Amino acid sequence: MSSIVIAQGGGPTAVINQTLCGAIVAARRHDPSLRILGARHGVRGLTRGDLVDLAQLSESDLQRLAHTPNSGLGSTRDKPDANYCESILAALQKAEARAFVYIGGNDTAGTLEILRRQSTGSCSFVHAPKTIDNDLMENDHVPGFISAAAFVANAFVSVDLDFRAMPGIYVGIVMGRHAGFLSAAAAGWQQSRDDAPHLIYSPEKPFSVAQFLDDVDAVYTRIGRCVVSMSEGVQDEAGRPLAEALAAGSVERDAHGNLQLSGGDLGIEIQRALKERFPKARARVDTFGYLPRGYLGVIDETDAKEAFEAGAFAAQSAFTAGSGSVVLHYDGHHTAPRIVALDRVAGRTRHMPDGFFDGASAISEEGRRYFKRLLPRRADIFTPFV
Amino acid sequence: MSSIVIAQGGGPTAVINQTLCGAIVAARRHDPSLRILGARHGVRGLTRGDLVDLAQLSESDLQRLAHTPNSGLGSTRDKPDANYCESILAALQKAEARAFVYIGGNDTAGTLEILRRQSTGSCSFVHAPKTIDNDLMENDHVPGFISAAAFVANAFVSVDLDFRAMPGIYVGIVMGRHAGFLSAAAAGWQQSRDDAPHLIYSPEKPFSVAQFLDDVDAVYTRIGRCVVSMSEGVQDEAGRPLAEALAAGSVERDAHGNLQLSGGDLGIEIQRALKERFPKARARVDTFGYLPRGYLGVIDETDAKEAFEAGAFAAQSAFTAGSGSVVLHYDGHHTAPRIVALDRVAGRTRHMPDGFFDGASAISEEGRRYFKRLLPRRADIFTPFV
Repeated sequence: MSSIVIAQGGGPTAVINQTLCGAIVAARRHDPSLRILGARHGVRGLTRGDLVDLAQLSESDLQRLAHTPNSGLGSTRDKPDANYCESILAALQKAEARAFVYIGGNDTAGTLEILRRQSTGSCSFVHAPKTIDNDLMENDHVPGFISAAAFVANAFVSVDLDFRAMPGIYVGIVMGRHAGFLSAAAAGWQQSRDDAPHLIYSPEKPFSVAQFLDDVDAVYTRIGRCVVSMSEGVQDEAGRPLAEALAAGSVERDAHGNLQLSGGDLGIEIQRALKERFPKARARVDTFGYLPRGYLGVIDETDAKEAFEAGAFAAQSAFTAGSGSVVLHYDGHHTAPRIVALDRVAGRTRHMPDGFFDGASAISEEGRRYFKRLLPRRADIFTPFV
Repeated sequence: MSSIVIAQGGGPTAVINQTLCGAIVAARRHDPSLRILGARHGVRGLTRGDLVDLAQLSESDLQRLAHTPNSGLGSTRDKPDANYCESILAALQKAEARAFVYIGGNDTAGTLEILRRQSTGSCSFVHAPKTIDNDLMENDHVPGFISAAAFVANAFVSVDLDFRAMPGIYVGIVMGRHAGFLSAAAAGWQQSRDDAPHLIYSPEKPFSVAQFLDDVDAVYTRIGRCVVSMSEGVQDEAGRPLAEALAAGSVERDAHGNLQLSGGDLGIEIQRALKERFPKARARVDTFGYLPRGYLGVIDETDAKEAFEAGAFAAQSAFTAGSGSVVLHYDGHHTAPRIVALDRVAGRTRHMPDGFFDGASAISEEGRRYFKRLLPRRADIFTPFV
């Protein structure tokens, strides 16, 4: 009896299970007799025959699963080589899979592209997008990003109010290895020049600690506080991640060659630099770390809906259009899923467009409009008396 | 024309402006002709005559102010000496103040107690409680705590799901200098032994890095992941804060003698210790830092309501009962404000009761019941397939 196999790869998001549920619902609708199999821990579980029957989930279980953040099937960062791919293809054949829907980022799309090329059967390979980094090519934005961005935007509004109440300098270090979307997102809620984040540093623009301290000085002198959003992945002039430069040799990479950034190390160095330059100021550096990426308390409704639709579209496309990568397209009014060739997404990184920047530490009006369009409406807060 | 003066001191909370608005509304009701003055940046602004007219706020401004986290009037950590207190009393006399309502923690109550003793006039001094640390004596719990606890509880549910999906070790470092309520709060949402936080470390119990690593090992070996909640203020056997022991001399204290903890430093040391003991595990340490204490995205309704009522009761008591500290009393069914003598709260610290602990790294059933009663209902999440 033929089947569709679904798996989740890479880091989680707040809405990654919406995509899983979308795929399940669309597969059921397409062919009620189809087996719907979930692979535990991505391709790793697939090769081991570690599969879950997803067709039997009740409506209420589906609802609960959809609203639960982080990968319900488990995830993996394995990067399959040729042999590993043979095992995956054998496992798909054994499951009589007509389609393999793999929910993940650009590494996941890369795995699917290798499988597609190596496959001699009729199985379709479809990538359903997710990432809080928002760095997938061909997408206006990526499921998972809006919820993470809303977490970060709420954080900066809150900290800004904190530092109005008691002056000082604050740096929030935000995930983002290669693209600064998440650290820049809070700009979408700025209503005046004095709203935080007052400075935004992204991996796309060279970062120097000396320039950063001068930037902070200027804002702090002007308004008595300075709230900064900084990407974990900020890089020096030579393109070397600052965290790597600071870690001095004790650096780890995962199977995909991704640097294992520890925002904590970066934060400690930034804290030291601030204390030296501003010895009398209240200066605090927080690394947001894992908190924004699958936070149960801040799940955006639009994000959830788009993630579900991307999953449903992925399963549907697998049966009707063959292999490809589902992307979110924006036509100027609405967002809707489409499918493109896997190699247009696989292994590539989307950076923030040049037009989103206003110098090296601020976001342009164009950038702010983009983030404002995606974010939910900001709560109507009272401007403090101070 | 006589007045009531209101101010905010110490660190902010998500609902501290509810208390401010409660006091404003109650003062208006008590005597519509009364001047209602807000002091900017606590007693500091008061001595400088830096006052705001709060009587004129429109209903819609009051609504927005109440829902805005962090001190709307600004705050201070000044600890007044005898001369400073003379300036405050002179300022209150100049304002013809019949009441001074000061919203804050135990240091703020301490300032009011000094003022009350030194005062020769008829002004009442009333402390309205707030703190995310939940460490005020005589209170069942303190306004501001529930919202911060809900932030932290949401974080640990989310991270637990993250680490089910990809195994590893996680430590979240949570504010709390002397009391572990906030780091322990997530225990209120635990439904089984395997729910995070698997280990909870509070300042009330001696902490050793060696024991911590053994504790982690046991959990990690048993279930393949270990999620830890740790207070910033954990102390060694000698009662010395670990962050201080690790900082080796470069420690700062504020005017109240409070150690300026940097969770970042503690986090780095914990991260190093984990990497050494578990070189192959995914190990991540995040310092939640300022995020839980005034987060716009997670404001608890009960907390907001109780904070408003505490402020209203404080203003009312100032006119009818004289000086004192407002406390939240729980009778086994309902929570309601009462007033007690200032010296029963001033400068004292409430610790977690012994009965809340089950050994040095777990919370007892009694403790879990307490936190469960306070927290909002946990979202109905799906137990992952892994």
